[in-house]
Amino acid sequence: MSNLRCIRCASLWPPGDYPEGCPSCLAAGHPATLECLYTAAPHDLAIPLPVLAPVTLGEGATPTLDAADLARAEGVGQLWIKCESANPTGSHKDRMSAQLVSRARLAGATRVAAASSGNAGVSLAAYCAAAGLQADIAITRNCPPLQRDAMERFGARLRAFEDSLGRWPYVQDLCRNHGAFAGTNYLNPPVGTHPYGVEGYKPIAQEILDDCGLPTDIIVPTARGDLLWGIYLGWQHLHQTGRIDRLPRLHAVEPYARLSRALATGDARGQWESATEQYSIAGGTCTLQALEALARSGGAPVETSDAQAGDARQRLERMGLGAELSSAAALAAVSRLRLAGKLDAESSVVLILTSDGRRG
Amino acid sequence: MSNLRCIRCASLWPPGDYPEGCPSCLAAGHPATLECLYTAAPHDLAIPLPVLAPVTLGEGATPTLDAADLARAEGVGQLWIKCESANPTGSHKDRMSAQLVSRARLAGATRVAAASSGNAGVSLAAYCAAAGLQADIAITRNCPPLQRDAMERFGARLRAFEDSLGRWPYVQDLCRNHGAFAGTNYLNPPVGTHPYGVEGYKPIAQEILDDCGLPTDIIVPTARGDLLWGIYLGWQHLHQTGRIDRLPRLHAVEPYARLSRALATGDARGQWESATEQYSIAGGTCTLQALEALARSGGAPVETSDAQAGDARQRLERMGLGAELSSAAALAAVSRLRLAGKLDAESSVVLILTSDGRRG
Ligand SMILES: [Zn+2]
Ligand SMILES: [Zn+2]
Repeated sequence: MSNLRCIRCASLWPPGDYPEGCPSCLAAGHPATLECLYTAAPHDLAIPLPVLAPVTLGEGATPTLDAADLARAEGVGQLWIKCESANPTGSHKDRMSAQLVSRARLAGATRVAAASSGNAGVSLAAYCAAAGLQADIAITRNCPPLQRDAMERFGARLRAFEDSLGRWPYVQDLCRNHGAFAGTNYLNPPVGTHPYGVEGYKPIAQEILDDCGLPTDIIVPTARGDLLWGIYLGWQHLHQTGRIDRLPRLHAVEPYARLSRALATGDARGQWESATEQYSIAGGTCTLQALEALARSGGAPVETSDAQAGDARQRLERMGLGAELSSAAALAAVSRLRLAGKLDAESSVVLILTSDGRRG
Repeated sequence: MSNLRCIRCASLWPPGDYPEGCPSCLAAGHPATLECLYTAAPHDLAIPLPVLAPVTLGEGATPTLDAADLARAEGVGQLWIKCESANPTGSHKDRMSAQLVSRARLAGATRVAAASSGNAGVSLAAYCAAAGLQADIAITRNCPPLQRDAMERFGARLRAFEDSLGRWPYVQDLCRNHGAFAGTNYLNPPVGTHPYGVEGYKPIAQEILDDCGLPTDIIVPTARGDLLWGIYLGWQHLHQTGRIDRLPRLHAVEPYARLSRALATGDARGQWESATEQYSIAGGTCTLQALEALARSGGAPVETSDAQAGDARQRLERMGLGAELSSAAALAAVSRLRLAGKLDAESSVVLILTSDGRRG
């Protein structure tokens, strides 16, 4: 890796750990993601990653299912389901954890601190166990018991807070003052997770290309956009190395309008909290990196209600696929994008099934 | 496929469905597995399977982890963990279900009947959903609620019985008199599951060879031996096609002595029921196919107590690996085989992690 570059101000920073993103933009009140730049040999086509021999539990290389019946029912040309649920702890987060926790260990950290009542917390707990690091996870009191149980079995220390926002100052204090490595964002307004971790999502683009060819559209359940941005980075690499001649559009699914409002004002820093059962993509905030992934790929935000996501979940289950509500939302989004004229009978669409909700 | 051959009397039978195994041996009171024979081109090295384009949910191609720390701790040369937990519903059963359910559909069946309160029932329910077949699963009243919930979400019809043995006549009646395709054994003494299904385990041998080379020993949690026998068939194919010059030893882990007693008498038809929390490998019976896999590969039966399996599970969890008790038993078996002189510092050992126990 040669440098990190801010996606907002384009300033360059030496390789290292910037859990709060670009220092210049942070000082200006605009938290902004840093992007990893590599000095690759021009003919090296492998997707570059920050940590070359990461701790692994067998993450990645997930299956892609050709869902021809769904494609017909939805009136699109082709429809695939990318099963990130096949990762070791049951969600895409394992790809990020492998890179992030490995970087933490290389950087000399002995503990990783994170705020999560869900998939990220379980994943970080597992990878910290694999790496011999201590995980400190800030959860909320309503954390599902099976998630909590899994984190504890993997040896994580848990601290429960009454409400979600109470967790951030705790994680911030551990990271700023007690040597913990940040496993999630702790700023508000937020920034993307550590760029070395987010890079772990890039191989998803390569795997989709290998299994499906180049699709026209990819639908990604989104909260603060780590997965959306990471998949974008993968396609960007494939484009820059001449493997593909256009980018697929990346669409972001959310339970209520955040990104569309942020796009309207051009400012990602708002608060648009609302109630939802789609807890993995809940929360009132969004990020600049999510806006950038949509803008650079030509994709759109889509809102899906809990009822729509619930119907979609049932359809997936009757195909033999377990999905948490936030993942089923990607299927619900197909109809909405079709109605909005953004998908049609020529579209080739990939849904990212982020998690099977095994501990919901 | 050219024929089916009885593993006990070597009689040949035309391709087809024999849920009760070899008709001759059944009539003689010795239920016996039929083995699939293929007429393959001599240079075709791909592992042959009965159904070439099965219904799929993304099963197989599971990761193999190099557990160097465990190898050192156990005093063996190398130790790998084959993560069958990465299959779509969380266990190795998905490999069997893909072949079995696909065969059921090709044979014109519209329903599959099975007895299971666990991984097999969830897996069959999911694959039946994917194939558009009805699943009828006979469970016990103490079936874990999350297993039951998963089967129902996948659209299975459930029928609960007070005790385990009450399920067999129900499944037998559905299969013999109501056109259901058998998804599990229903005989007592039992026979292996439909050979077309068990063939689905053969690629495990190829994947291990690709990832680890040829190990000396493989440890397989075992009840009625479908997985053990199916992995044996895979190695047998690799041996017969000249890919390997010896077979690895296959060892069978069980919660209490069944196979060692059956080996002592040469008769697999006994009843050796005992209490155990290792429910996926519980039950009082064993099968001829399990004895044959041990005898032909030179492996041994190993008994592991619930306490030993529980300690092993905790060790795996502290490495970031979820495992159900029956799967963790494979790690507990390493120490026992080492003490018995069957493993040593030169051994290269693969543990089959059959399930992560996500719905325990
Ligand atoms: Zn900046
Ligand atoms: Zn026979």
